[in-house]
Amino acid sequence: MKRINWNALDEAARNDALARPAQARAEELRRGVERIIAEVCANGDAALRELSARYDRCSLDAIEVGEAEFAAAEAKLAPELKAAIREAAARIEAFHRAAAPQPVGVNTAVGVRVERILRPINRVGLYVPAGSAPLPSTALMLGVPARIAGCREVVLCSPARADGTCDEAVLFAARSVGVHRVFKLGGAQAIAAMAYGTESVPRCDKLFGPGNSWVTEAKLQVSADPNGAAIDMPAGPSEVLVIADALANPAFVAADLLSQAEHGPDSQVVLVSPSAALLDEVAAEVDCQCAQLPRGAIAQQALEQSRLIEVESLAQAVEVSNRYAPEHLILQVSGARELVASIDSAGSVFVGAWTPESVGDYCSGSNHVLPTYGYARSYSGVSVASYLKQITVQELDPNGLRAIGPCTATLAAAEQLEAHRRAVTLRLAALGISL
Amino acid sequence: MKRINWNALDEAARNDALARPAQARAEELRRGVERIIAEVCANGDAALRELSARYDRCSLDAIEVGEAEFAAAEAKLAPELKAAIREAAARIEAFHRAAAPQPVGVNTAVGVRVERILRPINRVGLYVPAGSAPLPSTALMLGVPARIAGCREVVLCSPARADGTCDEAVLFAARSVGVHRVFKLGGAQAIAAMAYGTESVPRCDKLFGPGNSWVTEAKLQVSADPNGAAIDMPAGPSEVLVIADALANPAFVAADLLSQAEHGPDSQVVLVSPSAALLDEVAAEVDCQCAQLPRGAIAQQALEQSRLIEVESLAQAVEVSNRYAPEHLILQVSGARELVASIDSAGSVFVGAWTPESVGDYCSGSNHVLPTYGYARSYSGVSVASYLKQITVQELDPNGLRAIGPCTATLAAAEQLEAHRRAVTLRLAALGISL
Repeated sequence: MKRINWNALDEAARNDALARPAQARAEELRRGVERIIAEVCANGDAALRELSARYDRCSLDAIEVGEAEFAAAEAKLAPELKAAIREAAARIEAFHRAAAPQPVGVNTAVGVRVERILRPINRVGLYVPAGSAPLPSTALMLGVPARIAGCREVVLCSPARADGTCDEAVLFAARSVGVHRVFKLGGAQAIAAMAYGTESVPRCDKLFGPGNSWVTEAKLQVSADPNGAAIDMPAGPSEVLVIADALANPAFVAADLLSQAEHGPDSQVVLVSPSAALLDEVAAEVDCQCAQLPRGAIAQQALEQSRLIEVESLAQAVEVSNRYAPEHLILQVSGARELVASIDSAGSVFVGAWTPESVGDYCSGSNHVLPTYGYARSYSGVSVASYLKQITVQELDPNGLRAIGPCTATLAAAEQLEAHRRAVTLRLAALGISL
Repeated sequence: MKRINWNALDEAARNDALARPAQARAEELRRGVERIIAEVCANGDAALRELSARYDRCSLDAIEVGEAEFAAAEAKLAPELKAAIREAAARIEAFHRAAAPQPVGVNTAVGVRVERILRPINRVGLYVPAGSAPLPSTALMLGVPARIAGCREVVLCSPARADGTCDEAVLFAARSVGVHRVFKLGGAQAIAAMAYGTESVPRCDKLFGPGNSWVTEAKLQVSADPNGAAIDMPAGPSEVLVIADALANPAFVAADLLSQAEHGPDSQVVLVSPSAALLDEVAAEVDCQCAQLPRGAIAQQALEQSRLIEVESLAQAVEVSNRYAPEHLILQVSGARELVASIDSAGSVFVGAWTPESVGDYCSGSNHVLPTYGYARSYSGVSVASYLKQITVQELDPNGLRAIGPCTATLAAAEQLEAHRRAVTLRLAALGISL
């Protein structure tokens, strides 16, 4: 891990210190994904079978998971894991339900009722990757808010294994949160299928979920096409920033850094502290704990690009964090709770020594699909609102039109929109009022 | 206007009947915008001056509007117009404040606190077009929610006139809703300046507002660039769908259709009714009213592509509307309020005979920046939430970790993420618990 003294850096060096790895949309990737999307649009299911054979090296009998496969998955799963999936789903549901948007109505003048009503997005498509390991937790994080929102059809794609089956835990998780249909598809072809529809896969209005660079590029392309589908948010490699003080437990801090680093070689890990001693201790602990991890080699690669940043105060640590806008922010300092007020950009915040980031990945109840790569400056994580449309409704009675008609007419005239003005004056005339 | 009998159409013909005009991203437009963005990134203010001279035919002394120009604008404006701008702003504020998201907190288990906190997006950029006429109302619609959200810096761009000044009503509206800085810039160069920053224009985190095809393409390009800026929503030509029954006033319906049609030749206007007689009467009224409009020629062009659709019932009218997902939906039927429950996709709904669409454009209080072009299937209009980030916060005490640590460990093990598991077990061990 690279050691940096923040106050020894000029502005350019500070930018470098917080830079993410470049995410150029390689021309090759862009064209490759364009080709896959075109193939799926042209040949539907046949293209999906061919692309699955080519990229996932699996031969699919049925593209859709059937009842027998769901039942077999449930039978095969350890009871302890099923219980954990149900427990996590219940907590995710409790928080997401509490945070769901509510309808609103006010009178903005006598006789002028203005409301915001909520409607689920009809069909949503969830993507659950299965890179180095299956991710049932992602099925929960995407499926629970879709169910709370009341989406009419919830579709989920996850890549099949070489034998043509899907991971049992992903299937069980999907079923337990009410996903309606699961398809054994991965990569850009899964995104294309959900965005445009095929004989088997229904066309979805909005797509959700993380994925590799092919999935990310495909989501970007379909969201730029008016005939494609909306997406949850742009994506980048996962990341954590930890703020720790001299009193933090170096073993806890090291464990949190490593739980981010093990995600992949491109994971970003940053520790910011006013204590040089703590930075040293954590560095030593990281080496020691990393050596014991099955995914230690992956974590090691991520750590090589990671940073230990020494600052002069916790206030400056927060400044650094706000500038970086981390996906995950862990506060391992005394009085961590007070620091929250000064946080202005982060995906999800973990407060205090007893809140490892991994509880948020699984079952504290918050969502783990969060803005990475600095997108936390302007985007928010997935929530029930991501699955809803907010529609405004207004209703005027004659008194309402008397109240706000003249203001409307004046502004329409200023904008030289005479038909807008007349839509009001014609009605006012019917009420015996001339402007 | 094209007359259509919905029940005489097969599925393909129904799709055609509701098709929007193709919005192909012409290669020429795409490359032209790429060039403008590259010029602004490379040459900053100098590029902005040159591009303004080339495209807006105006020579800018100062790019930013100064105090003297704001004061002159206010002095020149009619008191009646200033009062209308203030009145509209107050009503927009009343509704948007009521509909603003609130912080949330719940305990999802004993000792597990999960919250959602809200933070304004730091710097936002608003675009106010000035095509055929200035649009002070758009400055209100974009500026009011930014002020309620508490954005630290609110920047607004609007094209200068040939004499290098900005429209007085736009300047007054911007000032009266707390916009911090106004720049005399239009088109793709304005979007590029706000997304990447120049010597004069601050770099913004998110961009808002309508615009012509150059502005729309530029917003699409900067939003696809991780180093660019987020945007409010994709855009297309404005549109209205009216559902009217036999008892509707044909003059009111015609006035509403025309107030949409006058926006531009590409505006979409659709009337759906179970009454053939009403359709005839409205068609005659449209011709009659259109002849009296200063923008009648523009409206006439829009009407040529517009449709009068006969259906068998109001329920079928709603089906047609939900399928079309209009930006504006007007319900001129008896019992209009009851119909709202069955609306599932629309930007904003206008209920009953006394609610012309133009009140929503100006001062009912709802926002007029709405999803067009079918985007209402998955997007919502601009609101305070569009200017906020929702950050989740979790805090566990030792009891909380005892409660949800085992579930976390089980799921982490299932996902083969050992470091995630150890971040929990190491802390539980410190509490004397081994899993």
